[in-house]
Amino acid sequence: MSFTVTILGSGAAVPTLSRGTTSQFVNCQQRSILIDCGEGTQIQMRKFKVKFQGLQVILISHLHGDHIFGLAGLISTMQLLGRKEAITIVGPIGIKEFLLNQFKISGYYNGFPIEFHELAPNTEAMVYEDKCIEIKTFPLSHRIPTQGYRINEKPGKRGLDKEAFDETGISTSYIQKLISGEDVIDNEGTIVKSEDVTFPPKPTKSYAFCSDTAYHPPIINAIKGVNLLYHEATFLDKESERASETFHSTAKQAATIALKSEAKRLILGHFSARYKTMELHKEEAEAIFEKVFIPEDGEVFNV
Amino acid sequence: MSFTVTILGSGAAVPTLSRGTTSQFVNCQQRSILIDCGEGTQIQMRKFKVKFQGLQVILISHLHGDHIFGLAGLISTMQLLGRKEAITIVGPIGIKEFLLNQFKISGYYNGFPIEFHELAPNTEAMVYEDKCIEIKTFPLSHRIPTQGYRINEKPGKRGLDKEAFDETGISTSYIQKLISGEDVIDNEGTIVKSEDVTFPPKPTKSYAFCSDTAYHPPIINAIKGVNLLYHEATFLDKESERASETFHSTAKQAATIALKSEAKRLILGHFSARYKTMELHKEEAEAIFEKVFIPEDGEVFNV
Repeated sequence: MSFTVTILGSGAAVPTLSRGTTSQFVNCQQRSILIDCGEGTQIQMRKFKVKFQGLQVILISHLHGDHIFGLAGLISTMQLLGRKEAITIVGPIGIKEFLLNQFKISGYYNGFPIEFHELAPNTEAMVYEDKCIEIKTFPLSHRIPTQGYRINEKPGKRGLDKEAFDETGISTSYIQKLISGEDVIDNEGTIVKSEDVTFPPKPTKSYAFCSDTAYHPPIINAIKGVNLLYHEATFLDKESERASETFHSTAKQAATIALKSEAKRLILGHFSARYKTMELHKEEAEAIFEKVFIPEDGEVFNV
Repeated sequence: MSFTVTILGSGAAVPTLSRGTTSQFVNCQQRSILIDCGEGTQIQMRKFKVKFQGLQVILISHLHGDHIFGLAGLISTMQLLGRKEAITIVGPIGIKEFLLNQFKISGYYNGFPIEFHELAPNTEAMVYEDKCIEIKTFPLSHRIPTQGYRINEKPGKRGLDKEAFDETGISTSYIQKLISGEDVIDNEGTIVKSEDVTFPPKPTKSYAFCSDTAYHPPIINAIKGVNLLYHEATFLDKESERASETFHSTAKQAATIALKSEAKRLILGHFSARYKTMELHKEEAEAIFEKVFIPEDGEVFNV
């Protein structure tokens, strides 16, 4: 099953022609998830051929405009194109009023159901779970309440080692138990250990999204060992004071978090429009952490 | 002085990669005016090299999302880029709450002053006037209160016919009166008629914006004789029933309004995303009115 992240917008507060405001599309085990929704997200989705009608969950990190000004337009378009299925929107308290007030005034939303899941400041919780994936949220450190998200695949079943199983001679009716990890005893008293006739499930993968945030080591526990980490890097090291004042991070700080959390790979983003190229961001981060990526809008990463 | 209209978005409710939602930039006598502000307007302005920091007035036709979802982002960006000058926003009652509620929740607007001029339904009034231009509003016919706008140049002063003036032998102190259209008598009793020593001022020009609206002949008086008319043409003639139900117009109806109002030229727009090409819109409109234009986003029209 695929697990990919499409960067829809990698810029900071001011959108440019090359970098939109924050938004990402995550496809995990055939679940379609949007993280943040800056202005123009629906247009970026069209441009990068991301099907928005399949969206099941929208995760919002915080209520600054560059992360939410595209939400009303996206929902309206999904309605106009005939969506009927409910959608879940997870985000800080206020996201519901933000959206519904726009619809109240623009006066024409009577579409598919929207289930809001509002998060109190500093929430650490599971916000979505089904048989294949789970999504957890954890607090970041920004000027207003801001949440990070971690999307985990759940372990699949073990695979059957058909040859080893056939040698045991027991009934095939025990297979389900065995691939679920249980040992069995059949009617003849034959003991078969699950691990002897099955292969371990494929390792699960995980993705974490951390934006916007100051350098904030308390998140390390929540993002421990992720295969792919997105961490904002609004500034370069020489602007570290500005980063600290505005509760943003430098590329070096993002890399330090990646290193300490033992992430496998790191995507930087939320680049201030003041920078024409991100070569220095890459250089400063790579001095600390090996696998650093500077995304382009539209780029797809395999988790 | 230039008088131009830049089409920033010519599509209907659902933006596509080729047509954004409604927005236009008007430069008239060095005044910068934005009409409507669908999602992504600030990005279109960048793309088409329209300087948004100079904007003085934003005119909003109505509160449907495809005409206003870009407003909060545009204002935020102008703030972030350091704008200090006040801006005037003219639009139906509700536009203030719509915008300020978004800023209240996104919690970070403390920028330049915004002067709201809210219009009651069915307003016919002057909404802006200075020594060079005037902007009048008039009601359209849509599902919710909707206003059209007409931007007029004001007549300049008459030009001095220097040769004819010198022949009169009167003092140059009378020139101001003469070019203002007044006749004068000097101390020696010489009568000089303004029209004998001056040229008429250049003819003034005017632009009218009519979207969204059903076919609505009562607007003809308000847009009489405009040099350039923008009239929505969401549908083709075969969808005229749908047009009528949704309070939109067909290309044929737009052309009929242009003909009856004696407009010089007609721009169509607000095309439904169902149409891949607008050839038929042009054809149907041209059967009624000669000078019809199908704009591309980014196209600039001289008024």
